[in-house]
Amino acid sequence: MIKRLCIVGVGLIGGSLAMSLRAAGAVEEIIGCSRSSANLKTALRLGVIDRFDTDVSKAVNNADVVVVASPLGSVRTIFEAMQGRLASHAVITDVGSAKRCVIEDARAAFGHIPPGLVPAHPIAGTEKSGVNAAFGKLFQDHRVILTPVAETNSDAISCIEKMWKITGAEVVMLEPDYHDEVLAATSHLPHLLAFTLVDALARMDQHDEIFRFSAGGFRDFTRIASSDPTMWHDICLANREALIGVMEIFEAQLAYVREKVIEGDGEAIKTLFSRAKSLRDQHIK
Amino acid sequence: MIKRLCIVGVGLIGGSLAMSLRAAGAVEEIIGCSRSSANLKTALRLGVIDRFDTDVSKAVNNADVVVVASPLGSVRTIFEAMQGRLASHAVITDVGSAKRCVIEDARAAFGHIPPGLVPAHPIAGTEKSGVNAAFGKLFQDHRVILTPVAETNSDAISCIEKMWKITGAEVVMLEPDYHDEVLAATSHLPHLLAFTLVDALARMDQHDEIFRFSAGGFRDFTRIASSDPTMWHDICLANREALIGVMEIFEAQLAYVREKVIEGDGEAIKTLFSRAKSLRDQHIK
Repeated sequence: MIKRLCIVGVGLIGGSLAMSLRAAGAVEEIIGCSRSSANLKTALRLGVIDRFDTDVSKAVNNADVVVVASPLGSVRTIFEAMQGRLASHAVITDVGSAKRCVIEDARAAFGHIPPGLVPAHPIAGTEKSGVNAAFGKLFQDHRVILTPVAETNSDAISCIEKMWKITGAEVVMLEPDYHDEVLAATSHLPHLLAFTLVDALARMDQHDEIFRFSAGGFRDFTRIASSDPTMWHDICLANREALIGVMEIFEAQLAYVREKVIEGDGEAIKTLFSRAKSLRDQHIK
Repeated sequence: MIKRLCIVGVGLIGGSLAMSLRAAGAVEEIIGCSRSSANLKTALRLGVIDRFDTDVSKAVNNADVVVVASPLGSVRTIFEAMQGRLASHAVITDVGSAKRCVIEDARAAFGHIPPGLVPAHPIAGTEKSGVNAAFGKLFQDHRVILTPVAETNSDAISCIEKMWKITGAEVVMLEPDYHDEVLAATSHLPHLLAFTLVDALARMDQHDEIFRFSAGGFRDFTRIASSDPTMWHDICLANREALIGVMEIFEAQLAYVREKVIEGDGEAIKTLFSRAKSLRDQHIK
């Protein structure tokens, strides 16, 4: 049972976590915090939080667990604001899609990695954002990756592990840099490609027709291009190094495919398509 | 009412068309044709067709309407096989995702564009294939593009237009080259990107983890990479010119984005992502 939980950034992820823990009776009091009091008022009205404070340094007062669930670009400032204001036993966690940057932000803001910091990343979400899109079952049967470091206190790890298990998630531990490489490939690059494709097509003369004659394939392929641009721009910058690495691999492969299309090398194209299909069919049920 | 309908290629599209027309009582007799008699036996057992012949030249005998619904790479051979065997009033159509190539295949096979040929493309499908995946409502509220040429007989056009309207589709006319450019952008390029992405990721050291930690975004983004490799390799070759044009536009935009990620130019990235999101939200309901 968490006595006092502070959620900084009560959006889709923060809001859904609050709803899930509340529904399980796993939390006594939830304090919301964000820059926009309008959003916090909505969260209060929806019963997602019990009270709020737009000032991070006050919102974290006496909190047992602090969850930073705001875009990655704001994490360092939030850490700075809570520096010196946390209870000594407070466990701090986050939900960012990149993990090395959160660890570096903590080092910069606190002057060291706080032993109570457990960097975390729930692999869940939709293209929607904001507390209005939140729902308690968001994490059910999804994976949450924790990336503790050498400094991390084991009690803090088990506290955050328990918290996520209550939401129905499966908790997995990964090394932060490894997490960042895997997620660059599986999530950050696809988002970047979807945004880039829609933008590239929009610049073509026939762009009205392009959207008009698009079918389910295009709709699904570009669904993630309806994601929050601020959040995703933060992720692309925060995980820049790993993202560039995987972009290079992808661009080289795409150049190879283009060459084969130009040459009319049907066998090479069919081989590649077949390999991709069988891998996807095998891994994605 | 179509008295005798011959469908060459009784897969997802050909099978669904047969089921839809039969359910509407719009056809008297349906003859299936394909190279695989196993597939035709399944189609017969499912009641999708009334009888079959694996020989195109016999299957089209006395047919009022012939629908070629096999991969684009086989269209020319099929046209050649039906040459001289068609009833004089027969209307011929197809369902291919590229249209200029079908017109050229007809010219090569028949020595001219038959006035009864109405090239067509239903913008519908799933990543599944085969007659087992067919269902009569597949075309409901989808668009079907007809790309008649100067030689095309207007009675043939209205016959095929009526046929598709019966399935619940909306029928639209486009110029063949224009169709091919639009579809290269909206469908062929996304498929190629999805196949290429899955294949590129599979080559990374961490590829097991990549698939393990993928979420809904990746699943949707790569759904079309589970499409039939033969069919899609045919489409990429058949619509090569338009596809290469749109690949170049996309690759230039991707190179721009990579440059901005390397430079850490957050404003440029956010601007592009925001523009893409607002376009997608506006066009895809």
